Amino acid sequence: MIPYCSICWEDNKVRLLDQRLLPQEELYLEITDYHDIIEAIRTLAIRGAPAIGVAAAMGAALGALALKTEDPEEFKKSFAAICQEIAAARPTAVNLFWALNRMQDVVKAHPAEPVAALQERLVREAQVILKEDDTTNRHLAQHGQVVIKDGDQVLTHCNTGALATGAYGTALGVMRAAWEAGKRFSVWVDETRPLLQGARLTTWELGKIGIPYTLIPDGAAAALMQKGRVNVIIVGADRIAANGDTANKIGTYSLAVLAQYHGVPFYVAAPFSTFDFSLADGLQIPVEERAPEEVTRFRREILAPSGAQALNLAFDVTPNELITGIITEKGIARQPLISDIKYLRSAKD
Amino acid sequence: MIPYCSICWEDNKVRLLDQRLLPQEELYLEITDYHDIIEAIRTLAIRGAPAIGVAAAMGAALGALALKTEDPEEFKKSFAAICQEIAAARPTAVNLFWALNRMQDVVKAHPAEPVAALQERLVREAQVILKEDDTTNRHLAQHGQVVIKDGDQVLTHCNTGALATGAYGTALGVMRAAWEAGKRFSVWVDETRPLLQGARLTTWELGKIGIPYTLIPDGAAAALMQKGRVNVIIVGADRIAANGDTANKIGTYSLAVLAQYHGVPFYVAAPFSTFDFSLADGLQIPVEERAPEEVTRFRREILAPSGAQALNLAFDVTPNELITGIITEKGIARQPLISDIKYLRSAKD
Repeated sequence: MIPYCSICWEDNKVRLLDQRLLPQEELYLEITDYHDIIEAIRTLAIRGAPAIGVAAAMGAALGALALKTEDPEEFKKSFAAICQEIAAARPTAVNLFWALNRMQDVVKAHPAEPVAALQERLVREAQVILKEDDTTNRHLAQHGQVVIKDGDQVLTHCNTGALATGAYGTALGVMRAAWEAGKRFSVWVDETRPLLQGARLTTWELGKIGIPYTLIPDGAAAALMQKGRVNVIIVGADRIAANGDTANKIGTYSLAVLAQYHGVPFYVAAPFSTFDFSLADGLQIPVEERAPEEVTRFRREILAPSGAQALNLAFDVTPNELITGIITEKGIARQPLISDIKYLRSAKD
Repeated sequence: MIPYCSICWEDNKVRLLDQRLLPQEELYLEITDYHDIIEAIRTLAIRGAPAIGVAAAMGAALGALALKTEDPEEFKKSFAAICQEIAAARPTAVNLFWALNRMQDVVKAHPAEPVAALQERLVREAQVILKEDDTTNRHLAQHGQVVIKDGDQVLTHCNTGALATGAYGTALGVMRAAWEAGKRFSVWVDETRPLLQGARLTTWELGKIGIPYTLIPDGAAAALMQKGRVNVIIVGADRIAANGDTANKIGTYSLAVLAQYHGVPFYVAAPFSTFDFSLADGLQIPVEERAPEEVTRFRREILAPSGAQALNLAFDVTPNELITGIITEKGIARQPLISDIKYLRSAKD
């Protein structure tokens, strides 16, 4: 059992591990106001597409609890406004919108209920979303662990562990399942500039699980592939278009091109809720541009001259043809991705 | 005129801009003991292959001046030992060994001279090496500036400006010459982890010259190429094998693969002294592995859990087939590189 949780619901409060302070400090925030959930998502106190989904649902539940009206119509209107406000926290991870839609569906499905009953349902739904996320991740990890062989050197980018999800992890969950199945391998961890989720979070999680890892600067991944020291690459996803094009942390597309050049299999691991079937391809995925200061400074240290211009694209989009397979809770979609995705979409869990 | 110098000789002292403190602080070190030159090279107070060559020569001159013997034979023996000591400062940049060989050739060429005359010759030779480096860079920059067109978006990695050389710069010198020729373009600056020479030094130099730039994390270069926002890539070199295989700052090989995938021309700019004709190909170039702490912390900030394992390869090797051309003071070697390199090697300056 991993001795930490990224987010949970306790006694009508959200308890959330502040990931900005990791690995130096393990501080849990106790949040009762949904505005603080928005702030936590915006500032990356909680991040990772599935975890953002859970946080959004719990934020919506907090918002619902705080509504003082007893008029169901007024409640529905105010609740919709709260969901809209939470939806604006970050633009790329589709799980955010998916989770909020699920919360709004609860309200829509029970038009005749009094406010107190709706509030109770919403609190329960947020916890169901968390629980399902855990189950989903464990299923996808079981499907995915076949891509790791004993003795492999696995490479990953950003953080996709229990911190990035409700509980188990996606790409890192795949590694965890392979490890728990008794396979022995090691992991190259891309530090993942600018916010160093690899250096700060993935190393921390792999250390807790006990999987050996080596941290590298993002620019070193190519040299390791050139030397034949990478057997498989597994990353997460923030949004996947209907054709398999995948938005993920900046630097992912770079790895995918390098993987193809070196003949290294490149896998994306994500729950089905990461698919946005309203988008035919990745060109339409909105990519968040964050503050340049995340590039020009790190905590107390200034990394560039004052006034330096910087571009901080939070994500990039990897086209489907560079992806060996997408690992989901329903199985692995392989090339040609489009038909496999269609098949899995229609399949039972 | 650029209002700073990376290294110069003044009054039998070496004056050296401490690049570890840039861009926050412009502090010049005054060095009289060659051991301090070794320390400055080792700790990257001065870095960049051509600048390391100049520093090594000046360090050797300081060492020569400090020898108290009047016996030419004893002097030669001690001087050779000093050169050997300086040569061990860093392993990859060949300019270090090239410059020390030039210094030892001075001694060998004048077997009958008294110590004081040899000392004077060595001090002069170190200054000649600096002066030549400036001239060489200006020539290569003139040859190279044709690869930049008006309106281009140029991408570069690490630092290759006046700070990395005796005075003018190699890859950054090419940009400077194009700018001075009236072309208008902008530069994407890879921040260049782990030591952020791009973020700290290249931005600082481009700002002083007045060339517009935008700083990016190394992992973002691919996404910009994907969007068609990179027209040409120009980097420096620490050592080039006879066949054109090029060792340069970690992350360079990654760019070369990405450039080929996206059809972006990829140029290396370096003086001929960067060639190591004793090596048939890049496999034989020794690649420095530096302390993992350069990856796990930055100044006061700790970036990874305590005890985190990290790999810090300082360089990677780009095979000749990924290089569009090598810009030298004698002209540009183009594909097939081997024959062009042979031709330029035998050509007059």
